[in-house]
Amino acid sequence: MSNAAAYAVSAPDGAFEKVTIERRELGPHDVLIAVAYAGICHSDIHTARDEWGGTKYPCVPGHEITGHVAAVGAAVSRHRVGDRVGVGCMVDSCGVCAPCLADEEQYCVKGAVMTYNTAVDTSTQPEGHTMGGYSTQIVVTENFVVSIPDGIGLDIAAPLLCAGVTVFSPLRHWNAGPGKKVAIIGMGGLGHVAVKIASAMGAEVTVLSHSLSKQEDGRRFGADHYFATGDKQTFRDLRGRFDLIINTVSADLPIDNYMRLLNLDGTMVVLGMPEKPIDIRPYTLASYRRSLSGSMIGGIAQTQEMLDFCAQYEIGAEIELISADEIDNAYDRVVASDVRYRFVIDAATI
Amino acid sequence: MSNAAAYAVSAPDGAFEKVTIERRELGPHDVLIAVAYAGICHSDIHTARDEWGGTKYPCVPGHEITGHVAAVGAAVSRHRVGDRVGVGCMVDSCGVCAPCLADEEQYCVKGAVMTYNTAVDTSTQPEGHTMGGYSTQIVVTENFVVSIPDGIGLDIAAPLLCAGVTVFSPLRHWNAGPGKKVAIIGMGGLGHVAVKIASAMGAEVTVLSHSLSKQEDGRRFGADHYFATGDKQTFRDLRGRFDLIINTVSADLPIDNYMRLLNLDGTMVVLGMPEKPIDIRPYTLASYRRSLSGSMIGGIAQTQEMLDFCAQYEIGAEIELISADEIDNAYDRVVASDVRYRFVIDAATI
Repeated sequence: MSNAAAYAVSAPDGAFEKVTIERRELGPHDVLIAVAYAGICHSDIHTARDEWGGTKYPCVPGHEITGHVAAVGAAVSRHRVGDRVGVGCMVDSCGVCAPCLADEEQYCVKGAVMTYNTAVDTSTQPEGHTMGGYSTQIVVTENFVVSIPDGIGLDIAAPLLCAGVTVFSPLRHWNAGPGKKVAIIGMGGLGHVAVKIASAMGAEVTVLSHSLSKQEDGRRFGADHYFATGDKQTFRDLRGRFDLIINTVSADLPIDNYMRLLNLDGTMVVLGMPEKPIDIRPYTLASYRRSLSGSMIGGIAQTQEMLDFCAQYEIGAEIELISADEIDNAYDRVVASDVRYRFVIDAATI
Repeated sequence: MSNAAAYAVSAPDGAFEKVTIERRELGPHDVLIAVAYAGICHSDIHTARDEWGGTKYPCVPGHEITGHVAAVGAAVSRHRVGDRVGVGCMVDSCGVCAPCLADEEQYCVKGAVMTYNTAVDTSTQPEGHTMGGYSTQIVVTENFVVSIPDGIGLDIAAPLLCAGVTVFSPLRHWNAGPGKKVAIIGMGGLGHVAVKIASAMGAEVTVLSHSLSKQEDGRRFGADHYFATGDKQTFRDLRGRFDLIINTVSADLPIDNYMRLLNLDGTMVVLGMPEKPIDIRPYTLASYRRSLSGSMIGGIAQTQEMLDFCAQYEIGAEIELISADEIDNAYDRVVASDVRYRFVIDAATI
């Protein structure tokens, strides 16, 4: 075991405090990573505050992790000491089920081991559950460690490990590209990366945001069109327009109205997890053979593909770098949608 | 104009009465069909009784029509006098929009001209709206008349024109075939044909029916498995099982429970039109990248493809042949689900 500093919460309403945690001894396939940056995802907040239930305390969130390899186990072949690497939402999976064999570990039949808050053997993590990236160090099996291409700074790469692959995966799966009209609902942490990636893929990109306040940013990220959904005329003007709608908003939206913006055979992919069920009229689906779908992050191979793609097109997240003692304040600002567009913790301040 | 006998209702609560209607003179591309059989679809009942609103009276329903060509216009090239032919839900469309050009006339941007209850010029139909197949004759433009292959009786072919293509189209679109696990919810007018067609396509077919009362029929139609949805254990046993679920039931089902029976990347296609919106949990979609979709009948070319497929595999509907004076009673029995599996009117009795 080796000691690492980390920021943890001990209760749903607790503040973050600096603590010392242990990381396991390196097994033959393990990689020890000196964390450089950790992004703040809204899921971190839901978990730290136990808003989804089932949070195990002490809780060290963080699943948008970048850094350098500090040491490797005897059998590690994919990474070397000094390599620029990243870890996303998962740190292990069964490896033998059909989704795992298809490089879709996020749909592992037994359930992937998430980067934090998954129950594990104490030999894996002494607290009995995984502890995430708000920490100076993390130990991860090599197959769940991806390489960060030289073209992207480790700070702006960090949010790509969750937000990036969460939008990249459905854009690829539903074939965003030249000739495809893609709408992105919401331009927050996920949405702003979705605009950049969809635009780089060659799609015609429209942002559907509550207001026009971020329009200038949206155009800069590559959006071809920008509409305010607070304006009812938007729903009349854009009826039947899109082949693919990526819904990044967690709030309860009138989904049926948005579905009618889809063209024949169009699909809306829901990425946010609003609390209420979605109401959808069967006729809205049938009348244009529309589909309502969902998607969860992406597999490890696809995460690497996404990072290589982002390096090629010089895409990173727009970030606000903070020190570790600002996490509580950053959480409040994320909840208030007061961030452009992702907070990233400088692990040197932990 | 030429006279035809027909069965019509004059009010939402009216009984069917024999009337005389006029059919238009043959234009150069028109085909006059001597109707032999007309199936009774649940949509006929909804429309005759104005349950969806907007019914134009007098109303002559019927969009599952088979018969023989009695006369053709001067420029008709696709059909000859004496040919065995059929007409389904549509009798015309704009022909120039993207869906029409893609042989998907059912999604015509201007709205297809349906076989009954669509407003038309009085030169097309003197009453100012289309009048369907509960009639001795009908005039239809040749591109919306399909050929009935010799291998299928005109009586058991009639329901294929709506029920058949309505299930064939999504089975083809979502690639039902060898290696695919397909579930059919409901084994009524649509469902029993879906079982036959999906089985002939080579899929592994499971029927999900409220009870096991039709199990023997289901097996005979080609089902590999048959489960009662009234038994909660069914939902536990079949979790994550299917690649495709065809939902033929119009009643309000707990769709979210059924969606969880889908495997990774599975799709449920809704064909019935329940009155209430569908409630679906975003997590159910995202956790296995599932899709909820809808589909409406099928295009004319696909209707022909379906008929040729059914002839090849010797598939027809299971029918109960009735005389025209039994329509009211048949409607009541359809509403009571007391039909195995489709009523067909013998037009010789009109």
